[in-house]
Amino acid sequence: MTEVDTLILGGTILCLDDGMTRIDDGALAIAGDTLVALGTQAELQGRFTSRNIIDGTKTLIMPGLINSHTHAAMTCFRGIADDMNLMDWLNHYIFPAEARNVNPELAYWGSLLACAEMIKSGTTSFCDMYIFEEETARAAQEAGMRCLLGEVLFDFPSPNYQTPQEGLAYTRGLLERWAGDPLIRIAVEPHALYTCSRPLLVAAKNLADEFQAPLALHLLENAAEKRQLQDQLGQGAVPYLQELGCLNERFIAFHGVYLDDEDLRIFGAQGCKVVYNPQSNMKLASGCAPVSRMLQAGIEVGLGTDGCASNNSLDMFREMNTAAKLEKVIHADPTLMPAPTVVAMATRTGARVLGMDQVTGVLKPGLKADLIMIDLQSPHLTPLYHPYSHLVYAANGADVKNVFINGRLVMKDRRLLTLNEEAIMAKVCQIAERIRHSLESPA
Amino acid sequence: MTEVDTLILGGTILCLDDGMTRIDDGALAIAGDTLVALGTQAELQGRFTSRNIIDGTKTLIMPGLINSHTHAAMTCFRGIADDMNLMDWLNHYIFPAEARNVNPELAYWGSLLACAEMIKSGTTSFCDMYIFEEETARAAQEAGMRCLLGEVLFDFPSPNYQTPQEGLAYTRGLLERWAGDPLIRIAVEPHALYTCSRPLLVAAKNLADEFQAPLALHLLENAAEKRQLQDQLGQGAVPYLQELGCLNERFIAFHGVYLDDEDLRIFGAQGCKVVYNPQSNMKLASGCAPVSRMLQAGIEVGLGTDGCASNNSLDMFREMNTAAKLEKVIHADPTLMPAPTVVAMATRTGARVLGMDQVTGVLKPGLKADLIMIDLQSPHLTPLYHPYSHLVYAANGADVKNVFINGRLVMKDRRLLTLNEEAIMAKVCQIAERIRHSLESPA
Repeated sequence: MTEVDTLILGGTILCLDDGMTRIDDGALAIAGDTLVALGTQAELQGRFTSRNIIDGTKTLIMPGLINSHTHAAMTCFRGIADDMNLMDWLNHYIFPAEARNVNPELAYWGSLLACAEMIKSGTTSFCDMYIFEEETARAAQEAGMRCLLGEVLFDFPSPNYQTPQEGLAYTRGLLERWAGDPLIRIAVEPHALYTCSRPLLVAAKNLADEFQAPLALHLLENAAEKRQLQDQLGQGAVPYLQELGCLNERFIAFHGVYLDDEDLRIFGAQGCKVVYNPQSNMKLASGCAPVSRMLQAGIEVGLGTDGCASNNSLDMFREMNTAAKLEKVIHADPTLMPAPTVVAMATRTGARVLGMDQVTGVLKPGLKADLIMIDLQSPHLTPLYHPYSHLVYAANGADVKNVFINGRLVMKDRRLLTLNEEAIMAKVCQIAERIRHSLESPA
Repeated sequence: MTEVDTLILGGTILCLDDGMTRIDDGALAIAGDTLVALGTQAELQGRFTSRNIIDGTKTLIMPGLINSHTHAAMTCFRGIADDMNLMDWLNHYIFPAEARNVNPELAYWGSLLACAEMIKSGTTSFCDMYIFEEETARAAQEAGMRCLLGEVLFDFPSPNYQTPQEGLAYTRGLLERWAGDPLIRIAVEPHALYTCSRPLLVAAKNLADEFQAPLALHLLENAAEKRQLQDQLGQGAVPYLQELGCLNERFIAFHGVYLDDEDLRIFGAQGCKVVYNPQSNMKLASGCAPVSRMLQAGIEVGLGTDGCASNNSLDMFREMNTAAKLEKVIHADPTLMPAPTVVAMATRTGARVLGMDQVTGVLKPGLKADLIMIDLQSPHLTPLYHPYSHLVYAANGADVKNVFINGRLVMKDRRLLTLNEEAIMAKVCQIAERIRHSLESPA
């Protein structure tokens, strides 16, 4: 008998492994940060013992969800303005609110709030881009969440730096300080092609290559951007990125709503990754990304919520639900984006997109224990014919009961164990008051 | 000082009245089935007293949601098959599952489960169409829910009758038995134009006229139906209904995805109502209803989830979320379907669609006390800039804390007071086992 730190006994396990294995009456053994065994209760019985046994009966146990694109600290701007034309929204709300308010304190507390929300809705890993990302890294570390994050890089000053060189230096600092961290990884993240010059993109690419880090940016999110880039570059955005040498298996494009077939072919050939954000794309009226064609082109596509100013929720169950439905109605084909495909995007494929698949995204002995337990004992999840169907079409974040990240129980019976959510909410409400006042006063 | 049955003190009230009144630090007084007063705490202080005081601080208080189109008993088929072509789905799953399993017991327990799910997600009124609706009426009565319901009428036999005449007689029985009931109202509900002959439609219309009851049916849900009706009738569906004399302010069309501009003009002129079901329309790949044009035509449009085989959730918060976003991306206009418009569809307009606006849908003294209290103390609802934004873009059904229907507290702190949810879930799981086996055996 091997003594382990935690034994989960009972429940239906969805492994999200290559064979999409399902185990009924399952059991899992966790030692340290690692999932050491899983199987049926009968298989694990007599092999493992623990002083910490968790009852999994009437739960669905699966890999933690991976939110592959967000701006965590923007929880502070959740719902500040909606239902507007993009330029009104940006110029009258988002840009001034950010310019006047974003500082390390906002970045830290906003990120903590995001972590609280994400854990409570079953997300265990996220990919972040924003300002003062050192603060987001600290917040994620405190929450015990896994993440890939990078400071947003622009040609123009951000609240965190005056020049692109300073932005790159800050990013280098992140790469050096967080090297080897068990939870936090760093990416190089130019904002987008319309906000970053060729020299900045090349420098960003070189920095990413030096550290073998992901290079991630917003790409072709809306039609106006596509037109503008074509005019400005005299070529398409993807051929331009290819010419710069940016495209490889560490390249991550957020959105990619206006990727055309030739772009998709290039992405497929180069092993580039895409993150699909259907709710944000709908709410901002950006468009419908060609997600089925991406999958047909062999591109690995993750799923993201985008930030809370444009969604306004970090609940990945809502994102899965929308991802499954939007493509069906756009192409008049109800067989597109079936439930297992969508759940895979939010777990195993998300991990591959973020370069974390040696660590998370799948329940498999030897990987880190990042897993969630979903309470099936609710009217809205009754009866149960097919677990994937419920995950995509019926469940929501509030159904998540327990969350483990890196072997650590971070939520038990919906109570957060790493964060004081009352204190975080109180602090963010104070920050929001300041934001509200800052928008009432003239610039 | 007037003694009332319940006083709610504190919280932000959204009245959804003509002026879309918002009251901060609000208070409400309920006596019997009626909302007798509402205002600020200061205004109600000294006027009312009660032995039953409910703390409303940090909640949002609003009219209960109105699910204007569902098939409650179909909770028994939730997630039985998804992601399929419509004809495969209907012919291999839904039709055989229904033919072999629908009986009064399934209708009763499936409806009870639906009521449990609806109350737990803030719905206080619903409009139902299915088989053995006497059982759904009994279930709604037990749950304490308000509803408008009608037996589905076909030319061919249903599990409940052999001939259309028997279906009409059953409907007449419902109309007579439930006349004057405080919660249950009856509609006459032919299934659709492609399943009901002209004589059946005329008889249904005459029955509805006799009782001044709503006449409700599925209409132009998908493109194939539109083509088929045009071929079969030699004219459009709406002109045909007009010729039959069906179109008046008691006429309710479910879906209406393929209503054209002339149809909308006729509907607007006749005061006909439409129920929009965006999630079902997306999942079945039916199409995107012209909801903005409906509103422009002056048509009153309610919001519905459709049944649990095609959505698969009765949570109206999810439906509001989708209703706000789909139209934006389809028309590349983020100003369409703003949050207050969507909340109005799910409350005040829903009540008008179902002919219940003298009773519910708005918080106003003299109307019945159908109201919900939403817990705002959650990370995903923090901070709060605009309540309508949170309702549509951030909240979900699990945020509903307390529910009153007809003055009666039916859920308190998320515990159902009228229904035994464990017993209901256990019974529906048994029924689902039978359904599963029925599909495994040959026809």
